[in-house]
Amino acid sequence: MAETEVFPPEQLFDFTVRAFRHFGVPEEDARTAATVLQAADLRGIDSHGVARLHSYVDMLTLGRIDPTAKVTIVRESPSTATVDGGNGLGLVVGPKANAIAMDKALAAGSGWVSVRNSNHFGIAGYYVLQALERDLIGWAMTNTTRLVAPLWGSERMIGTNPIAIAFPGLEEPAIVIDMATTAAAYGKIEIARRAGKPIPTGWAIDGSGATTTDPNAMIEGGAMLPLGSDRDRGGHKGYALAVMVDVLSAVLSGANWGPFVPPFALRQEIPTRSVGKGIGHFFGALRIDAFIDKGEFKKQIDDLIRTLRTTRPAPTTNGPLIPGDPEREAEKIRRREGIPLVTAVIDELRDISRQTGIAL
Amino acid sequence: MAETEVFPPEQLFDFTVRAFRHFGVPEEDARTAATVLQAADLRGIDSHGVARLHSYVDMLTLGRIDPTAKVTIVRESPSTATVDGGNGLGLVVGPKANAIAMDKALAAGSGWVSVRNSNHFGIAGYYVLQALERDLIGWAMTNTTRLVAPLWGSERMIGTNPIAIAFPGLEEPAIVIDMATTAAAYGKIEIARRAGKPIPTGWAIDGSGATTTDPNAMIEGGAMLPLGSDRDRGGHKGYALAVMVDVLSAVLSGANWGPFVPPFALRQEIPTRSVGKGIGHFFGALRIDAFIDKGEFKKQIDDLIRTLRTTRPAPTTNGPLIPGDPEREAEKIRRREGIPLVTAVIDELRDISRQTGIAL
Repeated sequence: MAETEVFPPEQLFDFTVRAFRHFGVPEEDARTAATVLQAADLRGIDSHGVARLHSYVDMLTLGRIDPTAKVTIVRESPSTATVDGGNGLGLVVGPKANAIAMDKALAAGSGWVSVRNSNHFGIAGYYVLQALERDLIGWAMTNTTRLVAPLWGSERMIGTNPIAIAFPGLEEPAIVIDMATTAAAYGKIEIARRAGKPIPTGWAIDGSGATTTDPNAMIEGGAMLPLGSDRDRGGHKGYALAVMVDVLSAVLSGANWGPFVPPFALRQEIPTRSVGKGIGHFFGALRIDAFIDKGEFKKQIDDLIRTLRTTRPAPTTNGPLIPGDPEREAEKIRRREGIPLVTAVIDELRDISRQTGIAL
Repeated sequence: MAETEVFPPEQLFDFTVRAFRHFGVPEEDARTAATVLQAADLRGIDSHGVARLHSYVDMLTLGRIDPTAKVTIVRESPSTATVDGGNGLGLVVGPKANAIAMDKALAAGSGWVSVRNSNHFGIAGYYVLQALERDLIGWAMTNTTRLVAPLWGSERMIGTNPIAIAFPGLEEPAIVIDMATTAAAYGKIEIARRAGKPIPTGWAIDGSGATTTDPNAMIEGGAMLPLGSDRDRGGHKGYALAVMVDVLSAVLSGANWGPFVPPFALRQEIPTRSVGKGIGHFFGALRIDAFIDKGEFKKQIDDLIRTLRTTRPAPTTNGPLIPGDPEREAEKIRRREGIPLVTAVIDELRDISRQTGIAL
């Protein structure tokens, strides 16, 4: 494990808000953006929290993201909308577009919003938690910079394109699904590289397209593998899900897709073509009582959760988890004990502090 | 390979229609049901075509399926509906519920229908092909009889719960995704058993919950594994997708879910509890021009398809396929050359022929 230092959530939140404010993001938007980043840190998804603040700051510094962008509806129907994010922060565009989907769900039973001209929006899970607060079933997807090879390909053509969806329980905590459509998270490959350890087969290929267990071979010119990994174990399915996310997020909205999704960080290369505007997201919301009584739905979700927990455990395990369990456990601990940051991330925050004059 | 005999599609279609008619299914419904089964046979998904006719006939013979069931809307909003299938044939209930989703999409931008009190509905892909005929993006899901262990479980608790979605192209054929949320298809495990061959790791566990390469160990008391197979390679993600399908199809509609989904075939055991009515499906449809000009969408889909086809191939492959390629190829060949059936299936059809007096 890398060395870490623990920070109170409030301190990181305030620092993040002030950093965004420094670059001209309006107060309310800065607080929204900081809330989305903090949700990742609290839920233990370290790669998507303040660890990314430096990349956002870089993009704002270079004028590649508009801090005061307006979010506009460019087309709509009773249950759908297409939103242009005005090249704003995805952390601000995302929550606004998601709110449109939720409003439409309340009026029309369901709401579906495809977003173009945005930037990286944080964890997909944040958006479906927002839907839970309004007693809705929420969906969120986004495309991302290319990092994954289609099954039988040997180069990066699609993103890790995550899918999130959540279902509220009555007495049980909600089922919260938030998953990249890859076999593993990119962060785990970076951790293996730093530790000088091999990665499991099925995670990645090298630059020639051959399976590799060397994290360097993936990072330096290789690619990640889709969920399912290879043909025998259903790699074509993970690839298909990634394509689905790309179409709903980008082709439907008029954003860039596949290998042409713009980079998130400075070190990533600029795509050879532009086929749309910015990156794309897709949000959905279903009003539960448009289908069934809310109480009945939640009672059944409780029953489903309890039933799954009675599953006879596989050897050497404590039995199946419910999607969302690990993140909820992490949040419980981190709200109490604080958020651990590795030295590399702290150094980046110090760098932002020097650049902006905001005390860490 | 098992021995096969080739049949003209029309002959199998007529036989299927007459078999359903024999058991009291109205003419139009019988033709719909036969069309859904034939779609599977034409697209090369042999396990879901006339190979299943005997199971449907068994259920009709025993009065476990109502041949003249009415499909009713029990709740609706502008963009959603909950449908009760009246314990009818899933092959009839499915198309009717899917049509409701498509009609709502034309009126409200999107349409979402959750279905209870149904039975197995054939291939999920059929429904999204229907949406393509009306120039819509179609979704279809269904829960199925338990066969799969949640990650870290050692017993069957959920079904193979497939997801289908399709996107139309302009000059290119549509992207058609139709995938079970498991690592492999059950049919492949049966084929390995008949051939006396081992199955790849990652497909199944035995009755103790341990990984197995013995198809018998899975079939006799073991379970299939979700897409991703194990924790390292994302088995929790395939499991989460299966849970998602179960909730949308069954908890949202009031059908049975998880281990309580009723059996499809006589040899399968009856669940210990009933938590709803029949099995559940979930259909969706999106009107493309509610989001973006149809022509622009289709042109971009063509571009995406052509871009993915330019991916540098992995060693020993011809490069990535587009979801739907294999099924479309199969259909081209089978429309021309006929549908090959293995001896076991032909024997079952002969048995139906004896039982009903309908000539094969």
